Amino acid sequence: MKIGIFDSGIGGLTVFKEISKVLPSFEIVYLGDTARLPYGIKSKRTIDSYSINNVNFLKSLNCEIIVIACNTASSYSTKLLKSKFKLPIFDVLTCGVQAAIALNPKSLGVIGTSSTINSESYKKLILSKEKGVKVYSKACPIFVPIIEQGLVKEKYYDKIIEESLRPLRKKNLDALILGCTHYPLIKKSIRDYMGEEVILVDSALEITLSLKKYLKTNYPNQFNKKRKKRNIYLTDKSEYFQSVTKKIFNKLDFKIRVVDIK
Amino acid sequence: MKIGIFDSGIGGLTVFKEISKVLPSFEIVYLGDTARLPYGIKSKRTIDSYSINNVNFLKSLNCEIIVIACNTASSYSTKLLKSKFKLPIFDVLTCGVQAAIALNPKSLGVIGTSSTINSESYKKLILSKEKGVKVYSKACPIFVPIIEQGLVKEKYYDKIIEESLRPLRKKNLDALILGCTHYPLIKKSIRDYMGEEVILVDSALEITLSLKKYLKTNYPNQFNKKRKKRNIYLTDKSEYFQSVTKKIFNKLDFKIRVVDIK
Repeated sequence: MKIGIFDSGIGGLTVFKEISKVLPSFEIVYLGDTARLPYGIKSKRTIDSYSINNVNFLKSLNCEIIVIACNTASSYSTKLLKSKFKLPIFDVLTCGVQAAIALNPKSLGVIGTSSTINSESYKKLILSKEKGVKVYSKACPIFVPIIEQGLVKEKYYDKIIEESLRPLRKKNLDALILGCTHYPLIKKSIRDYMGEEVILVDSALEITLSLKKYLKTNYPNQFNKKRKKRNIYLTDKSEYFQSVTKKIFNKLDFKIRVVDIK
Repeated sequence: MKIGIFDSGIGGLTVFKEISKVLPSFEIVYLGDTARLPYGIKSKRTIDSYSINNVNFLKSLNCEIIVIACNTASSYSTKLLKSKFKLPIFDVLTCGVQAAIALNPKSLGVIGTSSTINSESYKKLILSKEKGVKVYSKACPIFVPIIEQGLVKEKYYDKIIEESLRPLRKKNLDALILGCTHYPLIKKSIRDYMGEEVILVDSALEITLSLKKYLKTNYPNQFNKKRKKRNIYLTDKSEYFQSVTKKIFNKLDFKIRVVDIK
């Protein structure tokens, strides 16, 4: 039983890391579409096409469960992928919203890239499940480049956190959804600024919990087996990717293979 | 006689805009590879492959001159494209360096994306032409997202300019090469911070001058003809691209066609 995870490239590694830790006895394949990243600024047509390519690739490696570890692909393409592929598909958007709703919040914040926030995919899904909750969304487009370029030690970093989140701090939020798989990497700064009383919903954690629950029911015997291998495939292996993953994860000691997918 | 310009997407529009203005009587095709942007963080192997795709597409539309309006493709792929295609090829890197050297500088600054600066392509080319000049390079990785996301009015913007350029301001530069086709869009901020005495070398202007010189020699009769049409092709037309070009160029009143290239 193999689990296939895909993302445009870097952010999804937070999901990969969490799933790897919590589900050591399951074989995991990670595909980062680094030749075509980022997804967040591209059209639905293009993201649909890339997402289909990615699932086809993971299927060709016999993955039986798919995890969409990218907010843009989750927002745009989950429905299409579910109708096209007869496989269990988990996505960060649905799992994040489920976890947030379970907190019975009166007011919820959502932060993400411009495309995620502009698509209103979080807001719509939250309101379809819980009409009464107040949803405050805020695009934080500068967070991804700050994280990827390793600029959290620059003198302007605190000012960026402050300016980006100030409108949300005034709202007395019960919880804040980190609607981008990069954001868990600066969770501490977000918590320090927003305050301890605001619960941060981290989709890497939430999707792992959903997946674990599903596997406990459907593959109970797999949990007691020995540690399985992990494989990372990328569509492009640049120095940039290597330096970023080093900055973010200290080290990523898996064999990385480069594949062409179209 | 058609001129074909390509870029990963947005920055190259500064080059397109300048060439369009200066050479109205030449037919121009612009190809923005927006489905696969940005190039600056990807490997030489991938950029070579994308650049060949792009030139093949422009050739299929009968372009007889190619302009590489992207610093990454200029650094990585100019040599390969020149050997593969028997066409005149102009690139922003060579034209920018030629213009800077013509100023007889004692000290030259170069700013660009991380990949451009890390590749040392500017430094190497400058020193191969003029050994005695002191070259100070500085990656300004946060400028592209700031420009593309339209964040120049945020309160942290001045601090970003200051922190990014401070190491160069101390160097008594004669000139500073804007080694990224996005940077002309924040030229005023860079000039204000660096001071009037530092000449800014803008590759959009310089490549246009080189091209004009070539055309004056080879196509002198074409200059007096009437205004020719411009065609813009993109590999992805997202809301992001449209909002960014609107922010940057106020409007872009050309018909845009979306094409698949592989």
